[in-house]
Amino acid sequence: MKKLTVFINGENSAGRAFETLIQILIIVSLISFSLETLPDLNPRRRAWLNTIELISVIVFTIEYLLRILTAKKPLKFIFSFMGLVDLAAILPFYLSFGIDLRSLRAMRMLRILRVFKLVRYTKAFNRFRLAVKIAKEEIIIFFSAAIMLIYLTSIGIYYFEHEVQPEKFSSVFESMWWSVVTLTTVGYGDVYPITPGGKTFTIFVLFLGLGIVAVPTGLLASALTTARELEKEQEEEKKARSKQ
Amino acid sequence: MKKLTVFINGENSAGRAFETLIQILIIVSLISFSLETLPDLNPRRRAWLNTIELISVIVFTIEYLLRILTAKKPLKFIFSFMGLVDLAAILPFYLSFGIDLRSLRAMRMLRILRVFKLVRYTKAFNRFRLAVKIAKEEIIIFFSAAIMLIYLTSIGIYYFEHEVQPEKFSSVFESMWWSVVTLTTVGYGDVYPITPGGKTFTIFVLFLGLGIVAVPTGLLASALTTARELEKEQEEEKKARSKQ
Amino acid sequence: MKKLTVFINGENSAGRAFETLIQILIIVSLISFSLETLPDLNPRRRAWLNTIELISVIVFTIEYLLRILTAKKPLKFIFSFMGLVDLAAILPFYLSFGIDLRSLRAMRMLRILRVFKLVRYTKAFNRFRLAVKIAKEEIIIFFSAAIMLIYLTSIGIYYFEHEVQPEKFSSVFESMWWSVVTLTTVGYGDVYPITPGGKTFTIFVLFLGLGIVAVPTGLLASALTTARELEKEQEEEKKARSKQ
Amino acid sequence: MKKLTVFINGENSAGRAFETLIQILIIVSLISFSLETLPDLNPRRRAWLNTIELISVIVFTIEYLLRILTAKKPLKFIFSFMGLVDLAAILPFYLSFGIDLRSLRAMRMLRILRVFKLVRYTKAFNRFRLAVKIAKEEIIIFFSAAIMLIYLTSIGIYYFEHEVQPEKFSSVFESMWWSVVTLTTVGYGDVYPITPGGKTFTIFVLFLGLGIVAVPTGLLASALTTARELEKEQEEEKKARSKQ
Repeated sequence: MKKLTVFINGENSAGRAFETLIQILIIVSLISFSLETLPDLNPRRRAWLNTIELISVIVFTIEYLLRILTAKKPLKFIFSFMGLVDLAAILPFYLSFGIDLRSLRAMRMLRILRVFKLVRYTKAFNRFRLAVKIAKEEIIIFFSAAIMLIYLTSIGIYYFEHEVQPEKFSSVFESMWWSVVTLTTVGYGDVYPITPGGKTFTIFVLFLGLGIVAVPTGLLASALTTARELEKEQEEEKKARSKQ
Repeated sequence: MKKLTVFINGENSAGRAFETLIQILIIVSLISFSLETLPDLNPRRRAWLNTIELISVIVFTIEYLLRILTAKKPLKFIFSFMGLVDLAAILPFYLSFGIDLRSLRAMRMLRILRVFKLVRYTKAFNRFRLAVKIAKEEIIIFFSAAIMLIYLTSIGIYYFEHEVQPEKFSSVFESMWWSVVTLTTVGYGDVYPITPGGKTFTIFVLFLGLGIVAVPTGLLASALTTARELEKEQEEEKKARSKQ
Repeated sequence: MKKLTVFINGENSAGRAFETLIQILIIVSLISFSLETLPDLNPRRRAWLNTIELISVIVFTIEYLLRILTAKKPLKFIFSFMGLVDLAAILPFYLSFGIDLRSLRAMRMLRILRVFKLVRYTKAFNRFRLAVKIAKEEIIIFFSAAIMLIYLTSIGIYYFEHEVQPEKFSSVFESMWWSVVTLTTVGYGDVYPITPGGKTFTIFVLFLGLGIVAVPTGLLASALTTARELEKEQEEEKKARSKQ
Repeated sequence: MKKLTVFINGENSAGRAFETLIQILIIVSLISFSLETLPDLNPRRRAWLNTIELISVIVFTIEYLLRILTAKKPLKFIFSFMGLVDLAAILPFYLSFGIDLRSLRAMRMLRILRVFKLVRYTKAFNRFRLAVKIAKEEIIIFFSAAIMLIYLTSIGIYYFEHEVQPEKFSSVFESMWWSVVTLTTVGYGDVYPITPGGKTFTIFVLFLGLGIVAVPTGLLASALTTARELEKEQEEEKKARSKQ
């Protein structure tokens, strides 16, 4: 039992190998899931994809059961975020036996939550959390300003373009689509102003607005740099203490 | 009277609750305003939206009158920026009784100024103002450079594309629309150069120009980081003083 | 004579007023130049624009002659950069009397160089120059990398898309247009890959390439911040010295 | 022999002149290679381009042989990265005599590796490597996050748009094309959501996703600034040591 705990937490070589296997299986099953959506798939290949699906669900189920078995408080694990994600990754497969197949297709979307299982194995989020904490206030302010700006520009362009392009700017909500696509500089070209007033309005909005939408990115980047420096200092302090 | 002043400035628990109510009402009335623009709205829902409009105007009016009553210098408040914004948020509704309805539709746009009422309740602008002050000169220089660049590229593209696409590049002003859409990298695709000369010109403009348009954002982000550091130092100084 | 020198260099109140007048005239004549390109301009308005043109050329000529008169070495001024710009701003007008009018239209483009006259009156370029000097090497490296990347992606997309879209990707030069429009994220939508190979290639290029094209902007922004700090230090040193 | 080694490594004036010649030839042959793809090329110009090709291959071959001759361990040079690049730049030409010409056309693409020969002559990569090392972890995390985000948004948009636009969102792979083009803000406009659900989904994705895709660039820019400072410190230390 103690050995199993060590194994499942990747604390011995067999455990680390299993962990790597799980990670590979996650990626394989994600790719296989994408392949299933291909329109012209011959039955043979579909059978292959089903086999991959079967194998990965079996392995994920074994892993899930082992985690419950080795957990100090099994119920706490089952209802933890990672426990629910683990369950969500295998449940759609088992439900597809009992219930109608069409409902399954919608539930299968939950399978993509397996992506978050990849996250468990990295220390990725910690530094990111610190950075968000550092630049929290500015990011909130700029997000609010961006939302206000999008709302105001939506109403503005609606008044300029609604009469000339009633189909494309049919309501403030449709204008909001234009606002977001324009202010993030995606600019698909499906909706754009054609009246002189709308064009002039857009020119001013682009000049004043780009900054507001782009600044949070710059703030996050600089906060991440600061977070890395803080982390380094803490590690050095730890070293200095352990030496004493 | 004194109680009312405390209440309206959100300095006791009832006041804070009222403040939150006002904020919720602002958002609700903004959403309701957007919904009114939906093309296929049945009369029942329109009645609902009118009721929401009525309630919010009543509440905003009560708030406005309370603010005048409790202000030390009522006239000063009425002609202050926030006072005028408060008035602008309710006036269009009352004017719609006396005057022709069509003029109302245009004035209703002023209602979006309610957005700025949200701003009153946050300390958002202070740090932003400091950041703008820090990077003021560079931002002005780059804005001027951006405007010059847009003017010059408008004339340049006009000479390259006017003869081949006389409808799309009909004047320098139409070319300016292309300039802004291109240099901000929105690129709708409604106007673009088709002559070899115009394409080569655009390639050079994009290489030299993107920096000029994108730099102010970077400057603002770094200035905001500096502003936050300054703020922190000042707070620490204050603490150090209060301890003495 | 001495008075004139003081006047033209904006060193007394009359000189400063004249300087402001010149700046306003530059902007007015630039706007008037843009208005002349409007397709449906009635003769009356065209007459107005011609009058503005006449007045501004007269004032610029007087200013040019005064500068020559008051210069210590007139010839040196005439052949200096700003001297030539001043001449280029008025010469096209005078040449239009003697020579064929069509050639004039092309030469008039030189008039936009008046924009650079605005620059003379500001200290804008100094800090910018320092920033460029600080980040010079990185900017050169990234510009070279960007050019290499555009060349390589042009050839890559040419091989993927040439056969399927021979008109849009007719040569490596046409592909280069696609490369620049894509890597700067303008994305007009006039040319884009349609083969699976071309799309996959584009996905990888976008992932690896965006950084290379966007980094110089970030470098310039951070260099400008550093330049401002250096400037401040120098000013403080000057103050410290003048006190001694 | 010793003289040749000095010459080929650009350590005397003749060597430096030869090095410059090689660099010019690389650029000339790259331009000539692009010109060959032009559709309407008359035989005379094609002959010119072939001559340029011949000359540059001869010079590159001489250079290659000289490098082998002067290398201390010729075999080690031949199988080094730069040795293989040098070979790849001339081999396609010689192979075109023996083998079918069509296969040559595909192999000629290797010629663009000559671009990397330009790199040999600069110290460009060193600082860049240091910067990548400094911001390595964050860049990896954000790249992973970007890939996850693109995968998740591809599946999301597939479920929203597949039924209404089965041709444009035919599979998750086609949706991935949309994801990358949207999140990098290129936005060609060949595929975009048209359902209200798809549009709302895109609005949220753009708001949350732009940061994730844009942050690595900011991190790299700030790491390059740090790398330059480190380099400067090291140089100053070296100077201080050499003085002692």
